[in-house]
Amino acid sequence: MRTFDLSTGDDQYVKDIRVVRWEQYALERDLPFQAMWYSVPPGSESPVDQHPELELSVVVAGTAHVLVGNEEHEVQQGAAFLLSSTEAHVVQNRSAEVPLTIFSAYWMPLAEAAGHD
Amino acid sequence: MRTFDLSTGDDQYVKDIRVVRWEQYALERDLPFQAMWYSVPPGSESPVDQHPELELSVVVAGTAHVLVGNEEHEVQQGAAFLLSSTEAHVVQNRSAEVPLTIFSAYWMPLAEAAGHD
Repeated sequence: MRTFDLSTGDDQYVKDIRVVRWEQYALERDLPFQAMWYSVPPGSESPVDQHPELELSVVVAGTAHVLVGNEEHEVQQGAAFLLSSTEAHVVQNRSAEVPLTIFSAYWMPLAEAAGHD
Repeated sequence: MRTFDLSTGDDQYVKDIRVVRWEQYALERDLPFQAMWYSVPPGSESPVDQHPELELSVVVAGTAHVLVGNEEHEVQQGAAFLLSSTEAHVVQNRSAEVPLTIFSAYWMPLAEAAGHD
């Protein structure tokens, strides 16, 4: 078994957002997706992002407010949200005190992967 | 964008463990894995489990103690653990008060998926 620790992972900053990318764990032969954690400080938000990969995000601490077009969704700790390739998104942390941390898995859209049940 | 709420998901119980399986969201054409949440009450543990699927688990609330063979790992909120096909595992919640909730993604081992970069 392998464990992965958000607090000790090699990180980088995008604006004030701490990003821990899972490429460092060299799991590409085992995982059918790429992954990262990111932490949005209180009162901050992610840059607008859009990418061809689908992205499943699980809130592991705090509460996210996710803006997609005219939609706004509140996503609480433990809950998840799935973004498609066409959805530009911003993730806000509206708390004044609590960091927001998200685990995201992302992958290219599945081809017509025929043959699967 | 779609959101998935642990608290309102259809659930089932395995012993005293609440399991919310993601099959109910009908995402098999979008996700390259299956998924579930499960919650282990204070002082309880999961049954021994082993399965051909690899399993990536992210702790979304509480602290997990994971037993695999002679190994024991403490995995804190936000951190993750990856189990291979050969690893029978038990997940314990040793807290007297705090529930343990885990998001797990699982998938069959990747074939020699030749052709991928």
